[in-house]
Amino acid sequence: LARVAVIGTGLIGGSLGLALRSAGEGPVVGYDVDPSAARGALDRSAVDTIAPDPAAAVENAGLVILAAPVHLISDTCRVLASAVPEEAVVTDVGSTKRDVVAAGEACFGDRFVGGHPMAGSERHGIEAADGELFDGAWWILTPTAKTSSEAYAAVTRMVAKVGAKPVALDAEDHDALAARLSHVPQLTASALVDFAVSAGDREALLGLAGAGFRDVTRIAASHPDLWVAIIRSNAAAVSDGLEGLRERIDGLRETIDKGRWKELGDWLARARAARLDLFAKPHFVGEPVTLTMLIPDRPGVLAEVTTQAGELGANIEDLRIVHSTEGGRGRLELIVAGTEAAELLTARLIGLGYHVYRGGIDS
Amino acid sequence: LARVAVIGTGLIGGSLGLALRSAGEGPVVGYDVDPSAARGALDRSAVDTIAPDPAAAVENAGLVILAAPVHLISDTCRVLASAVPEEAVVTDVGSTKRDVVAAGEACFGDRFVGGHPMAGSERHGIEAADGELFDGAWWILTPTAKTSSEAYAAVTRMVAKVGAKPVALDAEDHDALAARLSHVPQLTASALVDFAVSAGDREALLGLAGAGFRDVTRIAASHPDLWVAIIRSNAAAVSDGLEGLRERIDGLRETIDKGRWKELGDWLARARAARLDLFAKPHFVGEPVTLTMLIPDRPGVLAEVTTQAGELGANIEDLRIVHSTEGGRGRLELIVAGTEAAELLTARLIGLGYHVYRGGIDS
Repeated sequence: LARVAVIGTGLIGGSLGLALRSAGEGPVVGYDVDPSAARGALDRSAVDTIAPDPAAAVENAGLVILAAPVHLISDTCRVLASAVPEEAVVTDVGSTKRDVVAAGEACFGDRFVGGHPMAGSERHGIEAADGELFDGAWWILTPTAKTSSEAYAAVTRMVAKVGAKPVALDAEDHDALAARLSHVPQLTASALVDFAVSAGDREALLGLAGAGFRDVTRIAASHPDLWVAIIRSNAAAVSDGLEGLRERIDGLRETIDKGRWKELGDWLARARAARLDLFAKPHFVGEPVTLTMLIPDRPGVLAEVTTQAGELGANIEDLRIVHSTEGGRGRLELIVAGTEAAELLTARLIGLGYHVYRGGIDS
Repeated sequence: LARVAVIGTGLIGGSLGLALRSAGEGPVVGYDVDPSAARGALDRSAVDTIAPDPAAAVENAGLVILAAPVHLISDTCRVLASAVPEEAVVTDVGSTKRDVVAAGEACFGDRFVGGHPMAGSERHGIEAADGELFDGAWWILTPTAKTSSEAYAAVTRMVAKVGAKPVALDAEDHDALAARLSHVPQLTASALVDFAVSAGDREALLGLAGAGFRDVTRIAASHPDLWVAIIRSNAAAVSDGLEGLRERIDGLRETIDKGRWKELGDWLARARAARLDLFAKPHFVGEPVTLTMLIPDRPGVLAEVTTQAGELGANIEDLRIVHSTEGGRGRLELIVAGTEAAELLTARLIGLGYHVYRGGIDS
C-alpha cells in the first residue's frame, strides 16, 4: 500500500494505524485536528509520523483513510480534494454512507471507496486504540458503478490486512439497513424509556421493570451527542425507518383491538424464528441451554461459577447478571453449549450449594 | 395462615409451596389440572398433600393461592366460587390484574386480593420450582376500595413469609405500567426484528447488526404462546400503550424531518438520564466503569478473568459477551464498581496478555 495517511487518530484511526503497522504496512502518517490526539497516536506508535496539517499528511500517500467523526467526513473530503495525490485511493470509516460517498466521489472521482468497519466506537479516543479491534469484524464497503476496480482492490486489501472481513453493499442499502438495525432501534429504546417513566412513581416502575425492559432499553444510556451526529448523517433513512416501524405498531394495534390472537401468535413466532436465525452461531457445540441461578452480590462468585464451567470444559456462550433492585443479591443467567455440559455444570453448582434452574430469567 | 391451597403447581405455585413450607407454614395442599405437575409438586415436597379436584383442595383452607396461567385465573375463580370457605382469603399471581380482580371480587367479594410476583416465569413447570425464587423480589398487590383489611394483611404476611417485598398498586395502573414496561417493549422488540429482516440478505444483516440490536431484540426470542396469553389478558392497556409509543415515534420523525437537532439531543439526554436513574444501584461502591476485552472463545477464559476480579476484590456489577459472528473469539464487556478497582483489574489482565480497553462495545 506504500504510504498511508490516517486523517483522524481517535479510536478507529489509531487502531487502524496500530493494525497496519503491525502488519508491516506503511509508513503511516497521522493527522488530527486535536494536536493531543495526534501526539497520543505517535506516543502509542499508532503512526510513524504526525503531520502539521491535513494537506501535509496526504503528501505522497498511496492510500488516504478518513477517520474523522461521520459528520465531518464530507467537509474533510472537500478540504483534501486538491491535496491528495492523483494516484492515491481514498476511503473513510463513517457509520453512514450515502452523503459521504457523494462527497467522496465529487472530490476524488473513481478513486473513492466508502467504508464502515463494524467495530468499536469513535468516542473513546486514542487511549482506547487497539491493533486487534478489527480482528474478525465485518467491514462494509460501498463501491458504486463509478468506483475503479483498482481502488476497490486496494481498500479490500487494507481491510484484510487489519484482520476484518469486507462485505460490499450499495451505499443507500447500507444506510437503510443501518437505520433498521441500529438507528431506529436506538431511538426506539429511548422512546420506550421516555414513555415508561412518564407514568408511575419510581417504586412502581422499579417493581415492574424486569430484565426484559432492562435489555431493550440498555442502549438508551448511550451518548446523546454521538447519536445526534449519527442520526443527522442518516436523517432520510432514519425517517423512513421510523415510518416503517410505525406501520408495524399500527398493524399490531389493529390485530390486538380486533382480537386476532392466532395472527398475533403466528407473527410473534415468525419474529422469534428470525431473531434466533440471525444470531445463530454456526459453531455451537450442541443446543444452547439456559441456566439461571441466584447469586450473592459479592466478589468471587462469578469466578467460582465460571471456574467450574472451565474445569468441566463447558463453554459459556453468553452470560448476564440481573441484580435485585434491593441490592445484595442477583440472578446469573448462563447459556451453555450442549445439554450434557449444562447438566454436568448444574450438578456441580448444586453440589456447591447454589440454586440452579433451567430456563431464562424472563421468557 | 393455617391451611394453604395452591391451585396450579407449576414454577410459581411450586416455588410458593416450597417457600411456605420451609417457613413453617401450612399444611399446603396442591392441585394441578395436569396430574403429573401435581405429583411432581408432591415429589419435590412443595406441597404436603395433593387433592383430586379444585374443590377438594380448598376445603378448610384459610388462604387460597390461584397460580394457574393468567388466562385461566378468572375461570378458576368461577369454578371455586362456591367451594372456597367463607372465611378464606383468596389471592392470585397473574401477570395482569384488571380482569382478574374483577372476576375475583365477583366471586369472593372483599376477601380477594390480586397479586403479581415479579419473579420467574410460569412456563418452566414444577421442575424449575425454587423455594428462594421470591427472595428479595417485588410483589405487586392490587387491593381495591372493597378489599377487607384483614384479607390484605393476610396476603401481605404470606408475601413477606416467602421473602418478597409487597408494593400496593391500583389494578388499572398496574396493567398500564405493565403494558409500558413489559408488553409494549416485548411487541416492539419483535416489530424491530420483523422490520429489519424484511430488508437485506443475511450477510448484510449480520454485518450491520451489532450488540445494540442484539440487546434490544433479545426478548423477541421469547415463547409466542405465552406472550399471546399475556397480551390477550391486558389487551386494552397494551393497545393504549402502542398508541403512546406511536405518538413518540411520530414526534421523533417530525423532529428529524425538520432538522431540530438540539431538540433531539435534549430528548435523548433526558431519556438517558431516566434510564440511568431507573436502574441506578444505591449500593454501588464507586462509579461504574466499563471495560471491554477481546477473548478467545474457549472454556476457562471467563474463569480466569473473573478469578482475577475476585482476587482483587473488584465486584463485577454486570458482564456480557458478544461473540464474533465469525466464531472463534468474542468481546467481553465488564462493568466494575469504582475507578480504582477497574484500574487494578485492567493492569492485571493486561499483564496476563489480554487487550483491555475502557468503554463499552457500543456507545
